[in-house]
Amino acid sequence: MLPKGNFPKKVYLNGKIVSAEDAKISVFDRGFLFGDGIYEVMVQLENGLFYKKAHLDRLQDNLNKIGIQYNIKEIDDNLEVLLKASNLTDQSCLIYMQVTRGVAPRKHSYPKGVPATVMMYALPFSLPHINPKNMKAILEPDFRWHRCDIKSTSLLGNIMTNEAAMNANTNEAALVRDGVISEGSHTNIFFVKDGTVLTHPANEHILNGITRKIVLKLCSDLDIPVNEKPIAENEIEHMDEAFFTGTTTQVASIAQLGSRTFYKNDEIGKVTIKLQKAFAQLREINTANITL
Amino acid sequence: MLPKGNFPKKVYLNGKIVSAEDAKISVFDRGFLFGDGIYEVMVQLENGLFYKKAHLDRLQDNLNKIGIQYNIKEIDDNLEVLLKASNLTDQSCLIYMQVTRGVAPRKHSYPKGVPATVMMYALPFSLPHINPKNMKAILEPDFRWHRCDIKSTSLLGNIMTNEAAMNANTNEAALVRDGVISEGSHTNIFFVKDGTVLTHPANEHILNGITRKIVLKLCSDLDIPVNEKPIAENEIEHMDEAFFTGTTTQVASIAQLGSRTFYKNDEIGKVTIKLQKAFAQLREINTANITL
Repeated sequence: MLPKGNFPKKVYLNGKIVSAEDAKISVFDRGFLFGDGIYEVMVQLENGLFYKKAHLDRLQDNLNKIGIQYNIKEIDDNLEVLLKASNLTDQSCLIYMQVTRGVAPRKHSYPKGVPATVMMYALPFSLPHINPKNMKAILEPDFRWHRCDIKSTSLLGNIMTNEAAMNANTNEAALVRDGVISEGSHTNIFFVKDGTVLTHPANEHILNGITRKIVLKLCSDLDIPVNEKPIAENEIEHMDEAFFTGTTTQVASIAQLGSRTFYKNDEIGKVTIKLQKAFAQLREINTANITL
Repeated sequence: MLPKGNFPKKVYLNGKIVSAEDAKISVFDRGFLFGDGIYEVMVQLENGLFYKKAHLDRLQDNLNKIGIQYNIKEIDDNLEVLLKASNLTDQSCLIYMQVTRGVAPRKHSYPKGVPATVMMYALPFSLPHINPKNMKAILEPDFRWHRCDIKSTSLLGNIMTNEAAMNANTNEAALVRDGVISEGSHTNIFFVKDGTVLTHPANEHILNGITRKIVLKLCSDLDIPVNEKPIAENEIEHMDEAFFTGTTTQVASIAQLGSRTFYKNDEIGKVTIKLQKAFAQLREINTANITL
């Protein structure tokens, strides 16, 4: 029995559509024993699956990085099946996908010849054109691993810092590693200084978000200068604007970050607004097959 | 259907004994979605559950560290039930235990009022009195998180480095963080220099193994001097002996570590042998209720 809560109606699990109640995996699944899996989250909006190809390409890339043998074509081919079974064809929704290294007796090294476990579901979910939140965030030590470029389900570090943010009655935690801001617990973070957009470079200390890539592309289109360099914790006070990005976060203005108050009222910085508006306009086209 | 392999006969899952085949959890279990769980491995030998209390105390301590509300008394009370159902009462076996934060709609922050998921199983498993392996190990960068003191199931970093060791036809990978040796992918590591035993201090960069603690106690009993300090990668060549410790590894002599050959034949260092013999003698007493 599932507890009460916002569970999906249906789950795609290893080739079959089942009820959420019946969506069960073996306790010997390496996703359960070792956090040995990769995941993706994307949304469907008015004009289709938002940057579907970019998300699926990243999923494939991440699976390759950790040597899980799986071709994401199966997922691509079954997205419509899932949406139909979920009564969400052409509806605004969120799609979660997870692929693990499959079921095998517990042993650290990778099992051979075991099929991957594939799970996905869709949930009704609507996104405003512009995220109305004026986010508050705490600063937390980034004690996660050094392969944050891998979108893995070994997420305990992320959830611990996210929980810290919730306990502080804020929306997110921005993480500090070696004195610089890396990213949020489930978002990327950007700053603006003298009209230039600044963000941590896409190395092994951050997850290169699809929304992060879109925002960098928008900056280029809008002739907003960009500098991909880490911002030190003690530089935050000198920044003019800051915002988080993410698939469900979109582009969210940061009103308060640690002890730095960017805005006391509903004000939003002009570069942030410009990017929020440009990001919202992307919903007017079908982005499903765009490569990033 | 489980694939072929050495699976246990029975699994204890949330209060019930079920077949390994039927041991299934929801895909919404946070152990599967987030690696949000803690685990333990212990063995039963001739004289009972080897350091059972030490393992269960650590399990409780780790659950407390990440805020999973669960009292390990249930596990303690059901170990005999599991062993009986597995036909392993008083038999040599390995016991695996895992507790996760339970089933809830996917959201990073911790759900409220959700019961933990509890899974354990026992497998026939015999341990020699002294591990006969002359271990070979590679050196790998320690890119894991900075809370290795937590025995969590978010283990992707560990399994990636273990896989690297297997691909190099070695037994283990010793991990190098900031120029010093932290621990193995699923073991602790010790060195011996001029009669003194050296090992990384038990801070947030290593898991404080039960066998590690036992070995330190044995050193004290045997008047072997100990220095808990990190050994730099470039100090390895100056070490006289090295060994790995772990619940199933016991005390295993290292013959080759990276480019350093300790022994070309079946030789084993005298401090290592002394500790191996003393460790083996612990099997003659019942250690189940000893606190470490």
